[in-house]
Amino acid sequence: MIVLFTDFGLAGPYVGQMQAVLSARAPEVPVVSLFADVPAFEPRLAAYLLAAYVTEFPAGTVFLAVVDPGVGGGRAPAVVEADGRWYVGPENGLFAIVARRAQGFRWWCIDWRPERLSASFHGRDLFAPVAAHLALGARLEEAGDAIDASSLSSLDLPTPELGSDRVKAHAIHVDGYGNVTLDLDASMLADGPFAVGDRIDVRAPDGRFEALWVRTFSDTDPGDLLLFEDSSGALALAASGGHAAGLLDLRPGTGVELRPQ
Amino acid sequence: MIVLFTDFGLAGPYVGQMQAVLSARAPEVPVVSLFADVPAFEPRLAAYLLAAYVTEFPAGTVFLAVVDPGVGGGRAPAVVEADGRWYVGPENGLFAIVARRAQGFRWWCIDWRPERLSASFHGRDLFAPVAAHLALGARLEEAGDAIDASSLSSLDLPTPELGSDRVKAHAIHVDGYGNVTLDLDASMLADGPFAVGDRIDVRAPDGRFEALWVRTFSDTDPGDLLLFEDSSGALALAASGGHAAGLLDLRPGTGVELRPQ
Amino acid sequence: MIVLFTDFGLAGPYVGQMQAVLSARAPEVPVVSLFADVPAFEPRLAAYLLAAYVTEFPAGTVFLAVVDPGVGGGRAPAVVEADGRWYVGPENGLFAIVARRAQGFRWWCIDWRPERLSASFHGRDLFAPVAAHLALGARLEEAGDAIDASSLSSLDLPTPELGSDRVKAHAIHVDGYGNVTLDLDASMLADGPFAVGDRIDVRAPDGRFEALWVRTFSDTDPGDLLLFEDSSGALALAASGGHAAGLLDLRPGTGVELRPQ
Repeated sequence: MIVLFTDFGLAGPYVGQMQAVLSARAPEVPVVSLFADVPAFEPRLAAYLLAAYVTEFPAGTVFLAVVDPGVGGGRAPAVVEADGRWYVGPENGLFAIVARRAQGFRWWCIDWRPERLSASFHGRDLFAPVAAHLALGARLEEAGDAIDASSLSSLDLPTPELGSDRVKAHAIHVDGYGNVTLDLDASMLADGPFAVGDRIDVRAPDGRFEALWVRTFSDTDPGDLLLFEDSSGALALAASGGHAAGLLDLRPGTGVELRPQ
Repeated sequence: MIVLFTDFGLAGPYVGQMQAVLSARAPEVPVVSLFADVPAFEPRLAAYLLAAYVTEFPAGTVFLAVVDPGVGGGRAPAVVEADGRWYVGPENGLFAIVARRAQGFRWWCIDWRPERLSASFHGRDLFAPVAAHLALGARLEEAGDAIDASSLSSLDLPTPELGSDRVKAHAIHVDGYGNVTLDLDASMLADGPFAVGDRIDVRAPDGRFEALWVRTFSDTDPGDLLLFEDSSGALALAASGGHAAGLLDLRPGTGVELRPQ
Repeated sequence: MIVLFTDFGLAGPYVGQMQAVLSARAPEVPVVSLFADVPAFEPRLAAYLLAAYVTEFPAGTVFLAVVDPGVGGGRAPAVVEADGRWYVGPENGLFAIVARRAQGFRWWCIDWRPERLSASFHGRDLFAPVAAHLALGARLEEAGDAIDASSLSSLDLPTPELGSDRVKAHAIHVDGYGNVTLDLDASMLADGPFAVGDRIDVRAPDGRFEALWVRTFSDTDPGDLLLFEDSSGALALAASGGHAAGLLDLRPGTGVELRPQ
């Protein structure tokens, strides 16, 4: 399976153009668009989002991941293998969290160049053909020389801070319901300052709010602010029957502080 | 064929995550996303929309229908068979109109549980695997015990009122053109107070408007308000070259009254 | 491969309904949605957009192209063959630029009518079945009688004006980044008044702006206004890290004038 993970947006032709290339080169391989709307031009935030979602896909999945503000510039085109999954895209920090969380990873710089390489759309011209090639079972070695693992870009990634009495996190995605995914896995809070069932003080740009850490949405009242472990395992904020991102004024990248009450 | 009908929104990963599960479990079965944007958290409205669209699909189609504000709570996970089509999703009223309009229907409670069942995403973890199973030809009996048909939830569904001199209906969907689908099938007005060609008085939240019931858009003037039988057979309001929902201030659930002039 | 090119919008059921028809009739043929959001009701603008994108698809591709404000009226349903690619849709000017730029083209009026032809959705009822038929290798002759090529509609297409000291163009698409595609192929400016590397005076509805014609985005500063050859070969305007369409107040159809500084 090839999984698309991009900031191309739902509008316009870009996702369709990549799908057309994949369909022409690997017609038997199923293609699923997981995200077309990760935070645009923000490989640092997208890196967390990618890492949050890949674990539900089987080994052998090829992720075609393109958040590429420096397209046409110096960043290397890369293939990463981590925990048996494959990643193709720009080497600009996008794969840093996947690599950091993996049991092991390797990466290659893509030396191959297509006959026609546009200046602004390496997703279609360079990364999609390589992803199709990998999905068809290409041997790794064809993608170029292996690189020293420690050289993989980590950029200046925002890091959640877990203290004994507070947690500082960042919004990394707002979904269509207004739910806000944070750059925290619920498992990171196993020994944290609060737990399921606790009332939590949330400090966001729009003020202080009280949230309840719940296991499910089913027994909450309309308007309640909720903290929950989302289906990817990340912590997220939701407003029951409402729009948490609007209520708290959270956008991808915004910091938010959580304290037990 | 598996048809997706959800309120997940176009943004974010949810539709893609369900497609990935279907693709892994039933790679040969075509999957089409019919709606990703039915009114969020509104199974009552979605019930009308689902019933309006299913009739154009052949017997054997499996609808994976998820509008599930009570996910994780007490509503049963259900499989419904109605007029030879299959429906998988939460038993919260979503299937009430399909069942009411069918020649006959049966329903089952899903007893099976996946190894990993997240609290907030039964669409991916529970309903998608069952839909894949059905699409691959699973025998009905495997989905659980058949239930007394009369026990299927009908909730407090909004009901259009057809009088001799007026019709009260509700908006159930606004499409990308601003066209507004009503909870009325055109066939219900065969003996109604007005017919194709008539001028109609429309009372909406934003005031009174005059609409013309037309067969096609092709011979109307820009700005005309139109009533028409849409391609699903439902009555709908449109503003020629404009945005009817904005003009009349109609949102899913809003009541609207129609009278002959 | 069947490629969808429509103004149906991303929301609502329309793209999914067409995909369902294609999947039922030609289950083995890959379907890609290239555009669901071309300028609504604007076949003249869509004609440029279609022509800009088709060249990257191989001969034999079937484009199911529906921008059809006159659905149900007098415009003919058409099949066009141009440079080995096939086009199915309303004969209302939508295919005029593809035909004008082709080495050669032929067109047919579709005489076939489906058993059930809705008044408002010929895309689903008429064009999709014909596209599936063509993709499965139908002989051209079955689509109806060939028509005099010169009779193909050209409408009153907006035409870019290339002068010795200025270029007048039109916005034809705004993508999710706010980048604005113009109705100019970069190749048309081979002998034009400015070239890559030049500073350009841009006159738009919101005033005068300075833009730099660049080859790539990678070495620009945030906020810079850029002119560039996009991945389809068309000229486009972008604001580095910003939203060019918002900055210049450009919408599909808006005129814009470019002069060397």
